[in-house]
Amino acid sequence: MLTYNFANIGSDSMYEFLYKCIKNDILAGKIKAGEKLPSKRSFAKNLGISVITVEGAYGLLMAEGYIYSLPKKGFYAADINTLPMIKTKSARSRAQEKPLNKSANVLADFTSNQTETEVFPFTVWTKTMREIMADKQKELMANSPSGGIMELRRSIAGHLSDFRAMNVEPERIIIGAGTEYLYGLLIQILGKENVYGLEDPGYQKPYKIYKSMGVSSEFISMDEYGIRTQALEEKEVTVVHTSPSHHFPTGAVMPISRRYELLGWASRKPGRYIIEDDYDSELRMSGRPLPTLQSIDVSDRVIYMNTFTKTLCSTVRISYMVLPEALAEKYYENLSFYSCTVSNFEQYTLARFIENGSFEKHINRLRNYYQEKRDALLAAIGSHELYRHVSIYEKESGVHFLLKAETEKKEADIIQAAGRAGVRLNPLSAYYFDKSQAPENIYVINYSSLKEENIKKTVEVLYEAMIL
Amino acid sequence: MLTYNFANIGSDSMYEFLYKCIKNDILAGKIKAGEKLPSKRSFAKNLGISVITVEGAYGLLMAEGYIYSLPKKGFYAADINTLPMIKTKSARSRAQEKPLNKSANVLADFTSNQTETEVFPFTVWTKTMREIMADKQKELMANSPSGGIMELRRSIAGHLSDFRAMNVEPERIIIGAGTEYLYGLLIQILGKENVYGLEDPGYQKPYKIYKSMGVSSEFISMDEYGIRTQALEEKEVTVVHTSPSHHFPTGAVMPISRRYELLGWASRKPGRYIIEDDYDSELRMSGRPLPTLQSIDVSDRVIYMNTFTKTLCSTVRISYMVLPEALAEKYYENLSFYSCTVSNFEQYTLARFIENGSFEKHINRLRNYYQEKRDALLAAIGSHELYRHVSIYEKESGVHFLLKAETEKKEADIIQAAGRAGVRLNPLSAYYFDKSQAPENIYVINYSSLKEENIKKTVEVLYEAMIL
Repeated sequence: MLTYNFANIGSDSMYEFLYKCIKNDILAGKIKAGEKLPSKRSFAKNLGISVITVEGAYGLLMAEGYIYSLPKKGFYAADINTLPMIKTKSARSRAQEKPLNKSANVLADFTSNQTETEVFPFTVWTKTMREIMADKQKELMANSPSGGIMELRRSIAGHLSDFRAMNVEPERIIIGAGTEYLYGLLIQILGKENVYGLEDPGYQKPYKIYKSMGVSSEFISMDEYGIRTQALEEKEVTVVHTSPSHHFPTGAVMPISRRYELLGWASRKPGRYIIEDDYDSELRMSGRPLPTLQSIDVSDRVIYMNTFTKTLCSTVRISYMVLPEALAEKYYENLSFYSCTVSNFEQYTLARFIENGSFEKHINRLRNYYQEKRDALLAAIGSHELYRHVSIYEKESGVHFLLKAETEKKEADIIQAAGRAGVRLNPLSAYYFDKSQAPENIYVINYSSLKEENIKKTVEVLYEAMIL
Repeated sequence: MLTYNFANIGSDSMYEFLYKCIKNDILAGKIKAGEKLPSKRSFAKNLGISVITVEGAYGLLMAEGYIYSLPKKGFYAADINTLPMIKTKSARSRAQEKPLNKSANVLADFTSNQTETEVFPFTVWTKTMREIMADKQKELMANSPSGGIMELRRSIAGHLSDFRAMNVEPERIIIGAGTEYLYGLLIQILGKENVYGLEDPGYQKPYKIYKSMGVSSEFISMDEYGIRTQALEEKEVTVVHTSPSHHFPTGAVMPISRRYELLGWASRKPGRYIIEDDYDSELRMSGRPLPTLQSIDVSDRVIYMNTFTKTLCSTVRISYMVLPEALAEKYYENLSFYSCTVSNFEQYTLARFIENGSFEKHINRLRNYYQEKRDALLAAIGSHELYRHVSIYEKESGVHFLLKAETEKKEADIIQAAGRAGVRLNPLSAYYFDKSQAPENIYVINYSSLKEENIKKTVEVLYEAMIL
């Protein structure tokens, strides 16, 4: 049996001293993991101390995880390799989580998609919120249906009808706190056996979500018309994710023929679905937008997704999806136990904001605002020597365009040089999963947060970094 | 080759007629699924019509999913069994999604946990919201860190320290739109290979979530002290879900010995974790609460969860979890690409609401409010004949107690009789997964929405339904 000498007890109490002795023996490996400790009674007798003292020591050791008890069996030494000894300050966590604000010394951040304070319709939004708080006290307290408050879903149905000529029943609209959350719901509706197809190049977040949720995904290469249905067949994709109205980041628009081809692919086998992410269609600057896949789909295979995080504000988390009939049924059957993730306050505020025409006004204002930024940037490039060395693509859609530099310099060097001078650049190649297909020296220029007064200097920096 | 007679064309255009002919043949099975259709050119030649006409017909058939094209191969008939012919109105969906409001003719709904309008601190909350909108314009637009706004996480850390004597770094607090959402995140952090243990009887939602997310869960029977660690070993559970401070629905409090035993179970093997759901600890009415598992855990195995949906309002969706160091690291490494699901407006409002003491005041008020309801109900039962036939348990914790009826009547009949008279009852048996263990005639009396003026009548109804 374990024996300790209480001569060296010092200022410790009896039980503290015993606790330390046993702990040290466990740490030193003298007491092995899984080894049985003496019973309290016999240990006390052996050491000539009271049972209470042993109890106190065992209690501390248990609390700290050094030993454990098995009912009716006694106490055993824990495996210390499985327990972190001391709660350490999570310096690493802290370092990793810098707030996502832009840093101060940036001239232009072409990588940022954060909403500018000046763009958000603060006054109207807060006024609407106050109205809601005054008018809807009772409704604000009533639990929202799982899919969202009906007022909001009806407003969205109206908006889709006006802006996208889509005829959608409000009941098939499901509201959620961001598209990321909705992807998670979709995986639960569609099932884990699916192979999710993602555009390459493309938006990387769905890939991360699919990976994190443990479902298979495949990157699908694109041709000039968009995602290739042949490749979907080859990779045995069952659910494909696409942004036909405005591919991210190339800005390409999928022609109608490819849209039909994609719908054909979906209708050919049961269980095939298309997730149509229409994330910034409202910001398209000119030209009549093509009909959404959802609106020309009669075989009920398109899941339409959109978000207010681009048009309204990235910190108000409201997105929605329109489910095909069969999936809506599944949702109501299996997933309506979930509470809606958007608070009633914001659901009601947004509903009224859409209903009273504020949203439409805001979109128009936003489009003009971005158009002015774009025009100013293009004008500055056009009147600069840089113009002779670059080509601009896809400038009509959303809040970015593509800039191709004709240069001998390496992409990585250009990005570094521009960065040093305060201009952050995203290369198109960053959005390619298959890097062998990635083009060199094409940049995705997101100008949404560009400041008028910095444009001239920015163009100069680009010229120096890319050409000189 | 297919041949159609254009004599019966009627008022249709050529292409519409051709479209209808082919569609009918597909529907009638004359053209089989997968059968190749004539090429546009040869079909046109054969029928003596223009290629444009065939193109028009094929276009319509494609759009409606009757046929599909394969690149460079031609057109094929689709499998009509896989496509719903017409988008039907989703009558079923609509019927299934009744708003979750209480119906009008209810005398007492002991099954409801909806926040009463009168309880929510409307004036203070909206005042705080207005302050935030005035003070924090810039911060409201800056994207929240994935885990939540630091102000809010610091406020919550302070609250945990004051109310639960918990010493928690704000960085290990993760904010999300409801605990349901956080469960989903946890599954992604912990991995799908785990076996999740759930208390039986217990709260049913985690089971639904685990099922929907495709991970294994096991129900674990309880003894008088709570969840049995022996059963955890037997069922090879790796992550256990428990509410030690106030078990739902029995209200039982786990004694300290069982808490240590549970911590011992967790520390015995790597990868074992305890999810401690402390959902309504703030509402405990008397007695000093026991320390949380989180606060006595030194082996970093407890995930603490709590929510503001019970203490504040069920329609403001804010919950949080405190991650152990190792899991916090995993979160930051793998999941911080997720945007926080709670909007900045509500995060900042809640942070200030806690900081300026409003939350504490509100909790005290809430506790008194519920205590009065409980006392009035107990007094009414105590002065009624019913009292001689029932026993009351666990009346100190949260917003419900257990009522056991000594009667010959069947539970199902009692619930039906009470329901007909406007009193909704939840039996304790409804929370048992293993129905053979479920007790008869114990009822979970959630009095949070009970109206003072209805109490007398309600007790009369209970007496008639249960005893007479």
